[in-house]
Amino acid sequence: MLTYHFKTGGEPLYVQLYDAIKGDILSGVLMPGEALPGKRPFAKHLGISVSTVENAYGQLMAEGYITSMPRRGFYVAEVKTLPKVPETVPVQKTPDPVLESLHTALRGRRWFADFQSNQTDPASFPFTLWAKLTREVLSDEQDQLMTNPPAGGTLTLRTAIADHLRDFRGLVVAPEQIIVGAGTEYLYTLLIQLLGFDRIYAVESPGYRKILQVYEAHRLKTAKIPLDHQGLRPDRLEASGASIVHITPSHHFPTGITMPIARRYEMLSWANQAPDRLIIEDDYDSEFRMTGRPLPPLAAIDMTGRVIYMNTFTKSLASTVRVSYMVLPPALTAAFYRKLRFYACTVSTFEQAVLARFIAEGHYEKHLNRMRQAYRRRRDVLLGAIGQSPMAGCAAISEENAGLHFVLTLKIKKRDEAVVQDAAKRGIRVAPLEAGDAHRFLINYSSIPERVIPEAVRRLSEAVLGREG
Amino acid sequence: MLTYHFKTGGEPLYVQLYDAIKGDILSGVLMPGEALPGKRPFAKHLGISVSTVENAYGQLMAEGYITSMPRRGFYVAEVKTLPKVPETVPVQKTPDPVLESLHTALRGRRWFADFQSNQTDPASFPFTLWAKLTREVLSDEQDQLMTNPPAGGTLTLRTAIADHLRDFRGLVVAPEQIIVGAGTEYLYTLLIQLLGFDRIYAVESPGYRKILQVYEAHRLKTAKIPLDHQGLRPDRLEASGASIVHITPSHHFPTGITMPIARRYEMLSWANQAPDRLIIEDDYDSEFRMTGRPLPPLAAIDMTGRVIYMNTFTKSLASTVRVSYMVLPPALTAAFYRKLRFYACTVSTFEQAVLARFIAEGHYEKHLNRMRQAYRRRRDVLLGAIGQSPMAGCAAISEENAGLHFVLTLKIKKRDEAVVQDAAKRGIRVAPLEAGDAHRFLINYSSIPERVIPEAVRRLSEAVLGREG
Repeated sequence: MLTYHFKTGGEPLYVQLYDAIKGDILSGVLMPGEALPGKRPFAKHLGISVSTVENAYGQLMAEGYITSMPRRGFYVAEVKTLPKVPETVPVQKTPDPVLESLHTALRGRRWFADFQSNQTDPASFPFTLWAKLTREVLSDEQDQLMTNPPAGGTLTLRTAIADHLRDFRGLVVAPEQIIVGAGTEYLYTLLIQLLGFDRIYAVESPGYRKILQVYEAHRLKTAKIPLDHQGLRPDRLEASGASIVHITPSHHFPTGITMPIARRYEMLSWANQAPDRLIIEDDYDSEFRMTGRPLPPLAAIDMTGRVIYMNTFTKSLASTVRVSYMVLPPALTAAFYRKLRFYACTVSTFEQAVLARFIAEGHYEKHLNRMRQAYRRRRDVLLGAIGQSPMAGCAAISEENAGLHFVLTLKIKKRDEAVVQDAAKRGIRVAPLEAGDAHRFLINYSSIPERVIPEAVRRLSEAVLGREG
Repeated sequence: MLTYHFKTGGEPLYVQLYDAIKGDILSGVLMPGEALPGKRPFAKHLGISVSTVENAYGQLMAEGYITSMPRRGFYVAEVKTLPKVPETVPVQKTPDPVLESLHTALRGRRWFADFQSNQTDPASFPFTLWAKLTREVLSDEQDQLMTNPPAGGTLTLRTAIADHLRDFRGLVVAPEQIIVGAGTEYLYTLLIQLLGFDRIYAVESPGYRKILQVYEAHRLKTAKIPLDHQGLRPDRLEASGASIVHITPSHHFPTGITMPIARRYEMLSWANQAPDRLIIEDDYDSEFRMTGRPLPPLAAIDMTGRVIYMNTFTKSLASTVRVSYMVLPPALTAAFYRKLRFYACTVSTFEQAVLARFIAEGHYEKHLNRMRQAYRRRRDVLLGAIGQSPMAGCAAISEENAGLHFVLTLKIKKRDEAVVQDAAKRGIRVAPLEAGDAHRFLINYSSIPERVIPEAVRRLSEAVLGREG
């Protein structure tokens, strides 16, 4: 009979027995079809308990190394081309060159000042309050935290958002119309599934590049619609054959244009000229309009259910807090729940609960006011620094009153690419608005702490004015 | 000249002026093309400051109600078909019938015991520890929390997961190969974008329904492949023309079959017979195998980069903590970063940081051990209760050794639908495994606290044995 020796103090006996038999099968000592000893005599022979043998056989059976035949016992299974000891051979023991290069790329570069980033600086996030609310939620709401919310998010968070929209955007919607998801890009992937793969999706050109990337990743037909000084051109939209259009009326990215009311009605008029037309209104940083009152969103003047409203907390709270939402018109809300309710909500209940309290208790409003002030001050410091810098003579600023960025137009000969490279050498990340040396640069200041601004502008000015090459 | 009166103690003056002029435009008192008073004389006339008029005019311009002509002043704009006071008209003031019915549906039903749910009961989540780790993270890692991670997640969490996979699944991978996302369903939507829309995606039949739903929501061609007692049938897979297959080898849902090693090699052999074939290995509750050692995943014996490994914390931690991950083979990792790196990671850095600590400090391992014990005890209590219930005589249990569910086969005449309804009347949610009165029911016990089990089984037994109709 097969004989194995066991070590004391190591693996459990059944594992040692399992390993030994498997080793004999893999090495060919035990051949396919060969009978194994009966459990009882084997146990007696080895001086171990019957259940130890049973456990080892059970594991070998589950893995397919042996089979049992009723009333006849156990046999080595037919296993085709079994390589040696598969489970201990590591995949990728030596670094893969592709992964190596990714490794470096993923670790990213740290900039002295990044005028492209949408990040918020750590000093502006209410960490202490967030910790307090988290502690409260984890102690008060354990049952709710463990309950799967509907696909659109918890009713608590959706109610808080609905109240906020009513009070601050004049938008009266039912919590059920609000779909919460892990970022605007994710909501776009849901919308595509809801609206269909065979339509033409129109985007602003220039515009927020990620929207186009999401559409392209889904192999959709897209149309890039040019702008005039009021925003997206309805005539070009009409000509494009698109039935869905994405616009940023409260603050166009990157030019900063605010769409006037007349153009808003033209957009609604376009939407109402065919039964399948829809407008996706991205209201992504309406909270940070610097002067005047915010404009009413299209969704608030849409009487026929043609506008999908989108907004996000990634701009107003932190780019790393992945919570965005969309407001669907009633008919689309029903379609969403019919077609897509099987999706679990992508935001953890923990984060939904904390954010709901943050909004409902009035902290969000206070945070927005504080941030608006801080950003206004930061913008003023930045504009002041540019005005006093050596590049002042060739620099013009536009669209500085809305959102967290503006456009810096430079009267220079130096190629844009050379400016970008010289800035990068100095730890400054900046990007031109468009290709072709138009010398227009996007200046996003949400991630730049105030104290860093003077030095950042000094370096940028050097990069702008320094000789090319 | 236009004359308006202002209230003290109300809205700011410029808002009152803005409202007054807008009202006159909307009501037709001021007609398109009509000139407005110059800022200075108007201010003097009204007894207010010039900047108040400037602010009101600025807001009206931004909204498109008025325009300015250089050196000539301000004019009422041409606004087509302007409805009255648009921003204060609420959408959906009266409840929409569609939304009303959703309202009820979304609030859900509370069950006495839900044998369909994948939820975990609140008593098993480590709330106190989670609160402690959250507090630590919010105080120690503020900079990292505000830094946008790469598309695949923070390196800290991915490293913690890679270490866990190496120690507990014998799977050695680089952190860069791990893509973290808000739930397995979301990762599927990424995979579809990565792998393409023109392929045939095969799924197990029966199988985890949501995978098929995700594919169908993307209008993909799918193939449902039947199983034999070892799992998915390779011959039928070959015949289907599919190039991608989703399997659950460590624990098939819902039958509980563990794919033996020989079949695993057959699967890998299938994948290697054409250059575009891939296996998606969903290892979703391998952590809760009740007896024996867990089987090595396919990904650990795949030498040619044909297996995408998936797993989730929604099963092992809480269904409402939306963190899952997939491990891509090196070539696909590179393709992912080339095509889809523009996507922001869908899990908040806050949650990634807490989970990374939870794993790295050994709490996850302890939690799994504790849960495994608790689930084993719960399963035993449940099996005991069924064995002593009046339905014992007509009940058989299968596949009870893996995962958090088993199959209850009933020798009864009563239609499955009638059992489901009678159970629902008693607050018990249960579902048949398949259509056609096979009398096989899925019993998922992850959400049922131990103390509830005896009463839940009593009610289920009543529903099973009670007369139909």
